[in-house]
Amino acid sequence: MSDFLSWVSIHQSRFEDAVGRLLPQTDVLPQRLHAAMRYSVLEGGKRVRPLLAYAAGELAGAPIERVEIAAAAVELIHAYSLVHDDMPCMDDDVLRRGKPTCHIEYDEATALLVGDALQSLAFQLLSEHRLSDDPSRQLQMVRLLAAASGSRGMAGGQAIDLASVGKQLAMPELEQMHIYKTGALIRAAILLGAHCGKLDQAQLDKLDRYGKCIGLAFQVVDDVLDSEADTATLGKTAGKDKDNDKPTYVTLLGVQAAKRMAATLHQEALDTLKEFGASAQRLHDLADFIVMRKF
Amino acid sequence: MSDFLSWVSIHQSRFEDAVGRLLPQTDVLPQRLHAAMRYSVLEGGKRVRPLLAYAAGELAGAPIERVEIAAAAVELIHAYSLVHDDMPCMDDDVLRRGKPTCHIEYDEATALLVGDALQSLAFQLLSEHRLSDDPSRQLQMVRLLAAASGSRGMAGGQAIDLASVGKQLAMPELEQMHIYKTGALIRAAILLGAHCGKLDQAQLDKLDRYGKCIGLAFQVVDDVLDSEADTATLGKTAGKDKDNDKPTYVTLLGVQAAKRMAATLHQEALDTLKEFGASAQRLHDLADFIVMRKF
Repeated sequence: MSDFLSWVSIHQSRFEDAVGRLLPQTDVLPQRLHAAMRYSVLEGGKRVRPLLAYAAGELAGAPIERVEIAAAAVELIHAYSLVHDDMPCMDDDVLRRGKPTCHIEYDEATALLVGDALQSLAFQLLSEHRLSDDPSRQLQMVRLLAAASGSRGMAGGQAIDLASVGKQLAMPELEQMHIYKTGALIRAAILLGAHCGKLDQAQLDKLDRYGKCIGLAFQVVDDVLDSEADTATLGKTAGKDKDNDKPTYVTLLGVQAAKRMAATLHQEALDTLKEFGASAQRLHDLADFIVMRKF
Repeated sequence: MSDFLSWVSIHQSRFEDAVGRLLPQTDVLPQRLHAAMRYSVLEGGKRVRPLLAYAAGELAGAPIERVEIAAAAVELIHAYSLVHDDMPCMDDDVLRRGKPTCHIEYDEATALLVGDALQSLAFQLLSEHRLSDDPSRQLQMVRLLAAASGSRGMAGGQAIDLASVGKQLAMPELEQMHIYKTGALIRAAILLGAHCGKLDQAQLDKLDRYGKCIGLAFQVVDDVLDSEADTATLGKTAGKDKDNDKPTYVTLLGVQAAKRMAATLHQEALDTLKEFGASAQRLHDLADFIVMRKF
């Protein structure tokens, strides 16, 4: 596990360097917007999606310089969604990763544009760098990220989430919401990393199955942590879901059953990796990490 | 000119059908978000960008079925920017194209997500349909639209615009703002239409020059109309720019000089079309249309 933690630390640091180079510098016009974009992306978060992309890229034998461009594209989409999500008309959060949220540090209009511009930049990265020797495959990567981000992906999941406040959702609806809201982008991170290498469709399908399990497990664990943690540990305002009367796996199943569900998804994810042998070690470790994390 | 007006009407109607098919239907989950997306895009606007794409596609001998996918992608970016622009933290507008703006008809959170999801859909369209026989060229189209939309394109122009309220901008700054804010997407519309056909780089450069002139002329005319028109004719709240103390070509140059500037840009645009002969007729007509429009 200490070997894994050093892998995490090395790749987090690599990623930080890469995304710092890929984001526009603060001396480029419009300077304030670029500063706010960097503020919203850099020095924050566990970088779960980039780590998954790196690990899938390793499994697929992909050049790491390509994988981290794809990883950055996914993380920019994730970062933009947090900026918009924190705005007063959505979750109205003032704290994120222990820092003031973008609209608090800057202003609402800037936060709106930061999110918009981060999304554009994600697609610019995926199209202006060479990520595959086959341009058709690279177009497929653009399509994958666009679908995962849009109204039948992440943004759609947020819309269902909004509509669910104060309602008692049934299990299939809650699951559909999270498959869209968190799952789609986690799956995209894994597949984009893998597409930078050479896997056949059956192997990609296996990885997608792993991603689906891990995506759901991630959300279940998030709900458990949110119900148990306090604000200081979490680095964001804790207990918001319950305050907002939002349905979660914990409110629906109770803490114990939610923990069992995470364990089952965890095992299923590990099972799908078996055929890859040692090359799947990092994805295996990440599955453990996601389910056992305490923050 | 009547031949041109019938061309406009036929293509506006074709476009409406196409984009109606390309947007998710209202019976697809999440239904309310999809209804709000359709509300924000359909039945509205002059469709200047799609018309420019159709005209450039004609010049380039491109299949119209491909051109209108590219046209839809550009128009979705334009539509999302209007939805976000109208929100209370930006221009705070309640009326757009004679209808309540998205956040008035629905709510702010939905308007935020509508804009986000329309942007994703634009890139999904550009990547999931075959728009060129050469996938590398199609990747270039994605890059072009992403760059035109982002922080060194449309979103960046809006950031400069926000920062300029209450300031007296000099001419080069005002021009840079509009090259980003309106110009980038108009140029993208023309180039994307052209990329669906077969033009060489020198020809594409000529078209880009045409686009740059037309983009600026469009904005100058917009400022003139805004300073002269009333709300009923414009279909949106008139005189907002002056109320907001925003710099415009009219406040900087006066109405007469602004009109002369539009005429000069108009002529320059027509000059760049000369080498294309009759195949540039529609782009020629559109230049006239943009400069002489009364709404």
